[in-house]
Amino acid sequence: MTGRVGIGLDIGGTKVLGAVVDDAGAVVDEHRVPSPTGEWRGSGSSQGLFDAIVATVTELRARQPEVTTVGIGAAGMVDLDGAIHYAPNVPAFRSTPVRADVEAAIGLPTVVDNDANVAAYAEARFGAARDMSDAMVITLGTGIGGGVVIGGKVLRGAHGFAAEVGHFQIDPHGPMCACGERGHWEAMASGTALGVMARAAAHRGELATVVTAVGGDPDAVHGPDISTAGRAGDAEALAVIDAYAVNVAIGLVGLANIFDPGVIAIAGGLVNDGELFLGPIRKHFIGHIEGATYRPVPEIVPATLGERAGVIGAAILAMDQHPVA
Amino acid sequence: MTGRVGIGLDIGGTKVLGAVVDDAGAVVDEHRVPSPTGEWRGSGSSQGLFDAIVATVTELRARQPEVTTVGIGAAGMVDLDGAIHYAPNVPAFRSTPVRADVEAAIGLPTVVDNDANVAAYAEARFGAARDMSDAMVITLGTGIGGGVVIGGKVLRGAHGFAAEVGHFQIDPHGPMCACGERGHWEAMASGTALGVMARAAAHRGELATVVTAVGGDPDAVHGPDISTAGRAGDAEALAVIDAYAVNVAIGLVGLANIFDPGVIAIAGGLVNDGELFLGPIRKHFIGHIEGATYRPVPEIVPATLGERAGVIGAAILAMDQHPVA
Repeated sequence: MTGRVGIGLDIGGTKVLGAVVDDAGAVVDEHRVPSPTGEWRGSGSSQGLFDAIVATVTELRARQPEVTTVGIGAAGMVDLDGAIHYAPNVPAFRSTPVRADVEAAIGLPTVVDNDANVAAYAEARFGAARDMSDAMVITLGTGIGGGVVIGGKVLRGAHGFAAEVGHFQIDPHGPMCACGERGHWEAMASGTALGVMARAAAHRGELATVVTAVGGDPDAVHGPDISTAGRAGDAEALAVIDAYAVNVAIGLVGLANIFDPGVIAIAGGLVNDGELFLGPIRKHFIGHIEGATYRPVPEIVPATLGERAGVIGAAILAMDQHPVA
Repeated sequence: MTGRVGIGLDIGGTKVLGAVVDDAGAVVDEHRVPSPTGEWRGSGSSQGLFDAIVATVTELRARQPEVTTVGIGAAGMVDLDGAIHYAPNVPAFRSTPVRADVEAAIGLPTVVDNDANVAAYAEARFGAARDMSDAMVITLGTGIGGGVVIGGKVLRGAHGFAAEVGHFQIDPHGPMCACGERGHWEAMASGTALGVMARAAAHRGELATVVTAVGGDPDAVHGPDISTAGRAGDAEALAVIDAYAVNVAIGLVGLANIFDPGVIAIAGGLVNDGELFLGPIRKHFIGHIEGATYRPVPEIVPATLGERAGVIGAAILAMDQHPVA
């Protein structure tokens, strides 16, 4: 590393996390504010969020004046110039030129990209996909976020909207996706989907131990309850985990057939359970990938950078796109 | 163009097509031999095919001595060094170093890539995706072939096996794919699948006019019969085409959400029917793509280079990878 530092921001539904990151990927300072509520949520104005972004950058810059760039990762559809065309948590964003507006307000070169893209970039530079020219990073959370690195660069597509990997159909009769389409991978393999599958099993009379543990109401069963029971060896919980792992694997297989990545890094809370989920996911993945006997099968590994992957990737992306003279 | 020429080969199940191509993508000479049968088909030997490749190159080189490179497109899994790990028509290929062997036998720099990849490269350089940095070329034939161009380069992945776009599941209860997996897009949207859907409709008592036209046997109905009836305005044939177009569109939607291409070029015999198929495919594609109101929706266009896309792309790829000093 050269000692260079830059600011990275991760804009989520509940918080704006800002960090100063050095060019070796280490977080050297951090500032966190709750995402503004009220005036910008669905009101047609994004002023509150914009103000929070500028205030976070200003605070970090005051503490670390040597920063030269700002990188922002945001959920939603971000175009190649950093305008946000659609954000699930910020309905007011409609082709909003966030990059240009922040750059004008702050006076530092600014980059804006999708949150899953910058997290993937961080994992490819410093985390689970380090030293891999081609990699996929898949976050199984409320939805499914995906970032794809090809030849060391994040896949953006013709307009910036690539890597919406949760939104391909894997079952025409599957549950409705948040996006309004039926049977998308996200609707069947996100962290949210695990809870849906568990409650369905509970309503079928399965998961007796788990239902008792949550007080007897099948609708009170959530993903973490399945993890807890699975860790304790509960056979019915393990069956739900296995069925969920099939759904995860089917999507990963399709993506691996499409991208032939050197590695697949999985992020999200379930990674904390180690092999409880990753073991069955790997088993079903290997059982279905194309030509498993003729090719190197991509390894499935846990992502390593955790919740700071976003700020690290955003900061590094901005530094890489704006090298110092 | 500079006047430079190179050899391109397309190795298929029925023929080896060789051509001399100039660096503007024009075919200036051509030589075609049937694919060898017998000794190399499933016998454990690929010698006959190898001899056919060398003979074709030797013939073309004798006629056009100024060629400096050889490019080969072959169905199957081709690694980054041009070794063929698996080929559906040549069971004897198993990590066979085709590029190295041909180069040693011919004495010209040689490149080997997947047939769909080189066809996509040709369309991106000179055909339907010309001037597009990001594009997808999808061939709906016996199977589904796909090539993806990203930043002007063909997507190869970490090992060369990327862009197996036919092999992701779109229906867990769908028909079995040639690869042994259930409900893959290829099994539901290839040209072959159109015939399967038509015969199923005929067995349900639909397509009365078409069945009569083929002599009364529902099992005698094939894709081209549906095209013929559709062109004549037969409502039942148009219903089969619409159902098939849904299957095609569902896969294209997933891929477009993943790649955000500037254009999607469709190749294969059904393109010759113009809007008969492309119209319904476009309609269903626009109805399902993510964020259609927030983004430029990729245009779906017919591929323009026809059956010579493979030889053109193979020849150009080899010339591009081996520039003259």
